[in-house]
Amino acid sequence: MHRTKVRVVEDALDANNTIARANRDDFDRHQVTVLNLMSAPGAGKTSLLERAIAQPLHGDLRVGVLEGDVQGSLDADRLASLHIPVTQLNTGNGFGGECHLDANMVRSALDALPLHDIDLLVIENVGNLVCPAEFRVGEDARAMVCSITEGEDKPLKYPLMFRACELVVINKIDLLPHLEFDLDKLLYNIGVVNPDATHIVTSARTGEGVPELRGWLTQLAAGRVGAPA
Amino acid sequence: MHRTKVRVVEDALDANNTIARANRDDFDRHQVTVLNLMSAPGAGKTSLLERAIAQPLHGDLRVGVLEGDVQGSLDADRLASLHIPVTQLNTGNGFGGECHLDANMVRSALDALPLHDIDLLVIENVGNLVCPAEFRVGEDARAMVCSITEGEDKPLKYPLMFRACELVVINKIDLLPHLEFDLDKLLYNIGVVNPDATHIVTSARTGEGVPELRGWLTQLAAGRVGAPA
Repeated sequence: MHRTKVRVVEDALDANNTIARANRDDFDRHQVTVLNLMSAPGAGKTSLLERAIAQPLHGDLRVGVLEGDVQGSLDADRLASLHIPVTQLNTGNGFGGECHLDANMVRSALDALPLHDIDLLVIENVGNLVCPAEFRVGEDARAMVCSITEGEDKPLKYPLMFRACELVVINKIDLLPHLEFDLDKLLYNIGVVNPDATHIVTSARTGEGVPELRGWLTQLAAGRVGAPA
Repeated sequence: MHRTKVRVVEDALDANNTIARANRDDFDRHQVTVLNLMSAPGAGKTSLLERAIAQPLHGDLRVGVLEGDVQGSLDADRLASLHIPVTQLNTGNGFGGECHLDANMVRSALDALPLHDIDLLVIENVGNLVCPAEFRVGEDARAMVCSITEGEDKPLKYPLMFRACELVVINKIDLLPHLEFDLDKLLYNIGVVNPDATHIVTSARTGEGVPELRGWLTQLAAGRVGAPA
């Protein structure tokens, strides 16, 4: 009697991962490193990016940004003034007001991205601590910005987001003297859910920590930081 | 020739609205007024509630809270210390990590809510400025908390949330001297998307504006504030 061997294909029906891999192939073909940048609304993603890429990164590394927003292009307009390529992706209309970017949305923007002309693409996700962490978009690494004004408990309340990221940027540190906030407690809580995460403490306002963030982005583009395959 | 008149039944297949109405009927039967309280993560919903209901509201008005979180019961534990009935509803397991409460989740908590013993139920939604605004849960009114640390642009970036609410609480006003923040600009932007919204400016830390918030909650429970039917 013959027995047909059944190969179990897991994950095959996960359309998002399929499309994320297709995106990743396209990024790889153009030798573009991709960072998925996430945070709660108003944590300072755009302000940090403005500070970090206002001056060219290491050597002639060329940066581009894909801006995800439910509606409008306020952040894209801010970044475009830095004379870098910025593409706006709105989740509000065609995508039904989605609270996150997924691989298919990013794919739909690929033609509008100047992949030939950039080395590092930063995808600024929709401001949200829940769903963006659930959808790979074809990125090499994921980073999140956590503002100290949000409180020390956020890693425990939104563990998937903190767990998903290689880098946690702790922003608005200039406000520390004015808050009842315990930085050690936040770091402890991050460690509970993601002991492997790198931390950089920043202030987009004063520039504190921005050189470290620039260094991390440069390392990322050089392939020396990355997500597990 | 006969013509059969076709009655167009709109909205009939919207399961969420159907269940929200069933919730509302149950709340009405118990004479419980319900507030759906929303915000971005860390805007201060729980801290404001702690301040606002630490002392009994007008007369013998009895308050209860339904806490929505992806995971954990940190906020519920804080509120339970005020000796009011608090019920925790987690979206993380049975509901698949949802980034919002919907009518069916609230319905699943009804049996755990002491509706006989409360007059005002505050439903603290998951911290998120996008999806919670899309799902009615059977509430009488919706309020959101907006922290001034989030920037003046949030009404333009998350218009549905600001439009959905009868009340916008502008919190963390104690930080105003330490931020580059223009309160008039925020108020202008709120007016652009929701000219009818009531504003209350608060600091959960200093107590500024908390009496006004308590007044609004009392009015709500008295049926003098409410969402259009």
